[in-house]
Amino acid sequence: MKLQGISGARGIGAGTVYVYTQEEICIDRTPIEEAAVAGELHKLDDAMQTTIDQLTEVKAKAAATMGDAEAAIFEAHIMIAQDPSLLTSIRQAVESEHKSAAEATEGVIESFAAMFSAMDDPYMRERGADIRDIGDRLLRNLLGMTPRGLAHLSGQIILVADDLTPSDTASLDATVVQGIVTASGGPTSHAAIMARTLAIPAVMGVGDSSALRTGEQAVVNGTDGIVLTELSDDEFAQYQEEGTRYRRVLQTMKESANLPAKTKDGHDVLLFGNIGKADDAAKARELGAEGIGLFRTEFLYMERDELPNEEVQYEAYKACAEAMDGRPVIIRTMDIGGDKELKCLALPKEMNPFLGYRAIRICLAEPDMFKTQLKALLRAGVHGQVHIMYPMISSLDEVRRANALLQEAKDELAAAGVAFNGDTPVGIMVETPAAAMIADILAKEVDFFSIGTNDLCQYTLAVDRMNERIGQLYEPLHPAVLRLIKQVIDASHKEGKLTGMCGEMAGDPMATMILLGLGLDEFSMSATAIPMIKAVLRSVTVDECRHMAAKALTLGSAKEIAAYVTRIMTEKGIEL
Amino acid sequence: MKLQGISGARGIGAGTVYVYTQEEICIDRTPIEEAAVAGELHKLDDAMQTTIDQLTEVKAKAAATMGDAEAAIFEAHIMIAQDPSLLTSIRQAVESEHKSAAEATEGVIESFAAMFSAMDDPYMRERGADIRDIGDRLLRNLLGMTPRGLAHLSGQIILVADDLTPSDTASLDATVVQGIVTASGGPTSHAAIMARTLAIPAVMGVGDSSALRTGEQAVVNGTDGIVLTELSDDEFAQYQEEGTRYRRVLQTMKESANLPAKTKDGHDVLLFGNIGKADDAAKARELGAEGIGLFRTEFLYMERDELPNEEVQYEAYKACAEAMDGRPVIIRTMDIGGDKELKCLALPKEMNPFLGYRAIRICLAEPDMFKTQLKALLRAGVHGQVHIMYPMISSLDEVRRANALLQEAKDELAAAGVAFNGDTPVGIMVETPAAAMIADILAKEVDFFSIGTNDLCQYTLAVDRMNERIGQLYEPLHPAVLRLIKQVIDASHKEGKLTGMCGEMAGDPMATMILLGLGLDEFSMSATAIPMIKAVLRSVTVDECRHMAAKALTLGSAKEIAAYVTRIMTEKGIEL
Repeated sequence: MKLQGISGARGIGAGTVYVYTQEEICIDRTPIEEAAVAGELHKLDDAMQTTIDQLTEVKAKAAATMGDAEAAIFEAHIMIAQDPSLLTSIRQAVESEHKSAAEATEGVIESFAAMFSAMDDPYMRERGADIRDIGDRLLRNLLGMTPRGLAHLSGQIILVADDLTPSDTASLDATVVQGIVTASGGPTSHAAIMARTLAIPAVMGVGDSSALRTGEQAVVNGTDGIVLTELSDDEFAQYQEEGTRYRRVLQTMKESANLPAKTKDGHDVLLFGNIGKADDAAKARELGAEGIGLFRTEFLYMERDELPNEEVQYEAYKACAEAMDGRPVIIRTMDIGGDKELKCLALPKEMNPFLGYRAIRICLAEPDMFKTQLKALLRAGVHGQVHIMYPMISSLDEVRRANALLQEAKDELAAAGVAFNGDTPVGIMVETPAAAMIADILAKEVDFFSIGTNDLCQYTLAVDRMNERIGQLYEPLHPAVLRLIKQVIDASHKEGKLTGMCGEMAGDPMATMILLGLGLDEFSMSATAIPMIKAVLRSVTVDECRHMAAKALTLGSAKEIAAYVTRIMTEKGIEL
Repeated sequence: MKLQGISGARGIGAGTVYVYTQEEICIDRTPIEEAAVAGELHKLDDAMQTTIDQLTEVKAKAAATMGDAEAAIFEAHIMIAQDPSLLTSIRQAVESEHKSAAEATEGVIESFAAMFSAMDDPYMRERGADIRDIGDRLLRNLLGMTPRGLAHLSGQIILVADDLTPSDTASLDATVVQGIVTASGGPTSHAAIMARTLAIPAVMGVGDSSALRTGEQAVVNGTDGIVLTELSDDEFAQYQEEGTRYRRVLQTMKESANLPAKTKDGHDVLLFGNIGKADDAAKARELGAEGIGLFRTEFLYMERDELPNEEVQYEAYKACAEAMDGRPVIIRTMDIGGDKELKCLALPKEMNPFLGYRAIRICLAEPDMFKTQLKALLRAGVHGQVHIMYPMISSLDEVRRANALLQEAKDELAAAGVAFNGDTPVGIMVETPAAAMIADILAKEVDFFSIGTNDLCQYTLAVDRMNERIGQLYEPLHPAVLRLIKQVIDASHKEGKLTGMCGEMAGDPMATMILLGLGLDEFSMSATAIPMIKAVLRSVTVDECRHMAAKALTLGSAKEIAAYVTRIMTEKGIEL
């Protein structure tokens, strides 16, 4: 039998199915008596303390078994759990609305989480999942239930679940779990990210997973997003062997991670990292990032009740610039999407937030807020190679208005006698089809482009990639997307300027040869993807890539292009 | 003083401000006692009867003063009010949930209306407003309040309101109301459509209209979307004169409505009508439509509890084909958007419905439903020049899969010995940037294109045009949109095929010269726009249009292009 899902992490894994289900949380919604309030508050404090204790323990375990990145998730969880505004909000709901501690927790967690989940940046959405995970843990502690976890597994397991939270995966043993299958979620879910980090083949969003039963043998083909069951012993053994071979390839790749990012014919390629906090810069360096191609500044706006002031921002940007030690750091100005409330900024609720009031549209409507950020960026430019990047540009007018505010920011800094870098390069994200279509016009006004393929693909194909129902229509190798990318790169080169890419496509090995062949100057990705892209680059020549790009542009569909790329890469012995 | 809004209906109007406010509806939400249920049901029946009586009267008045189109709105209102499922649902909420008749009405109306309001087709959204209007009337009757209306106005009035419902405008006298200003709503609101029908200059979405006070003099410049107050007597008189001149132009235009759609140099242009029901075809003919460029089939799916069967659809398509008497009729297959419940089809709730599960995406996932429609269309092809058009195409694969189902439909009809037109031409809407970018590939697979500019513009610019906060970013004359349109037309011509357009841009006189210059073969629009587009065509030559299109494509922004078009049209003496 064959189940079709979405690729979450590449590779082949074979093992015995274990269907992971969790006891449902059931909340009594009867209002509590005034007399019971004190008791509920006491229970709440206890449960919160237990939660923090558990998280501290889980964090230590995660650091030991899964590495710093996973441990950092729990460090973040601990910080959220310790945030006084969370506890205060829950206490208030108990005291003034006479809700039980559990009902109050559920409501507050949901409203905190919704704020993040509504954002268009997958990285930010993930934070909503974190908050829900903490809430789940807190509720289980409040209700005297066992916390989630997977430490009890052994053997060679194919883990099947509706979805997996950090708490689920914290104690997951990568030598035990050979493959992961989730019913919901997509390639940007926590489960998928974790699977890629641990190199466990994973298939996401198979929908109904009830066909998979605990105890039966199954094979996860994470590369093609397929789960197979009811195999003969021979077939199963064959897939097991294929899985072993894939893990050997990964090992080789890891060992070559410190070699230079160079093609076989000696052409240097810029591989940069995408980060969300200044602290992540050092990690990106370690994994071989020669610069930061996307520093997302949204955290600064989301983690506080007021807008971040110039000083707070300056310190964050400066820290990142210094950590990168003179290498380029491209910092994207505020890219928050138009939905749900942000504590520090009133945003309207919208029917189609992806087509709404967001990013540069908000910044141009809030010039003081925007200039505060621009000043912090200009000042940070003194300490390293800071680049400013405007997101969500769809017209020439927006670029000119943003640059006019940048000039005002410079004038004000100069008048105040504050040090800043007046020559800070300024670029734009090319992520609307409009910007790609007028790239020739925009190239004259900016210093560089960075293609945001997630949004560009989403708007071009009119597909919300987080929507599981149509997720299969989200195809970055669609000829329309490749043609737009070519147009953008050609337009920038004609003006003697560089085009980078900071969408997920930049870290997808299936796209590497085509993008290099189209002339992409800089690839920026989640730092963990760098070794794999480096391995691809080291196996190919620029001419081969140009040839592939030219040929791919003549094909009619993403499927044909993917088949063509797979064929060539297999011929060249590149294992993905 | 100057208030900026969005153009709703062109022209200049001057008069005295009248701020139209309505007594708020206030609903008591206390649950009712079991004993009170019978009384509430009785009140409900009375109020419903009063509502239907009022609507019948309003309809007669509207027919006399405003014409058939406006009267048809109330005919539809009466049908909705008489729909037994509406009354049954309200009665149930009273009986089983012990809500008062008013609270029950509010809830049921809202859930009925939400279904329509969430659709991406402005035409369908309007139906949500209709249902709310009926609900408002029913509630006022239940609560013993006066129904809405504007029959009491006299003099030369600038009507200012938050928004206007059909009930408000039914008794509106176009000789009294010189201009309309609404705080909310956009160019596709009922108020705007009605203003265009009655040729009353209108400005929509000015936001806060509290600066306008009853009794002061004001000027509405509907062309530029501006409202002016605090004018000197001289200025006011000057604007009055300009308004009179504009009305004279409109009169001339009306008188030339029956002249052929021909440019000054004798080039024939196809002007078609967009319709939503087979009945509208005759009306479109009267206004000069030489064909139907878009027959929306959504009504068939929305007005019943079950999916429309082949027979029901066949009769509707046949009626339209016959009404057009051998002229082309392009029928779009089901284009319902992925949000809220449709009684006859379970659709998921989505975060970004415009980027979701809709139109051809649903049809390909529901092949039986789709084939039923295709069979009805093939059969109707026997009675006229029916064309089939697939909406929302974003890849070659979708076209091929749709055509494979069409072939199955033909085979099944043939096997059953049913008459059909096997040579029915098949085309696609080009409304995703993806389709426009691969128009050369798609042109080989279809018989014609029709550009859907509303969606194309929306996706290209990443702007939900119904979102008032960013509505000003929705610019159909954006160079990116014009370039995509040119690409589509050129690609179709290279394959010897025609490109039409059925988005609102086709009926916008500001775009006529550019579109003709780009080589657009057929313009399909709301039939009321035909006389104006005809007037523009009759004042220009094809060469002039080509020159304008070429020049417009060199300009960097929609604003520059609009200014250029306005200058040329003014030079040529074309008054808009």
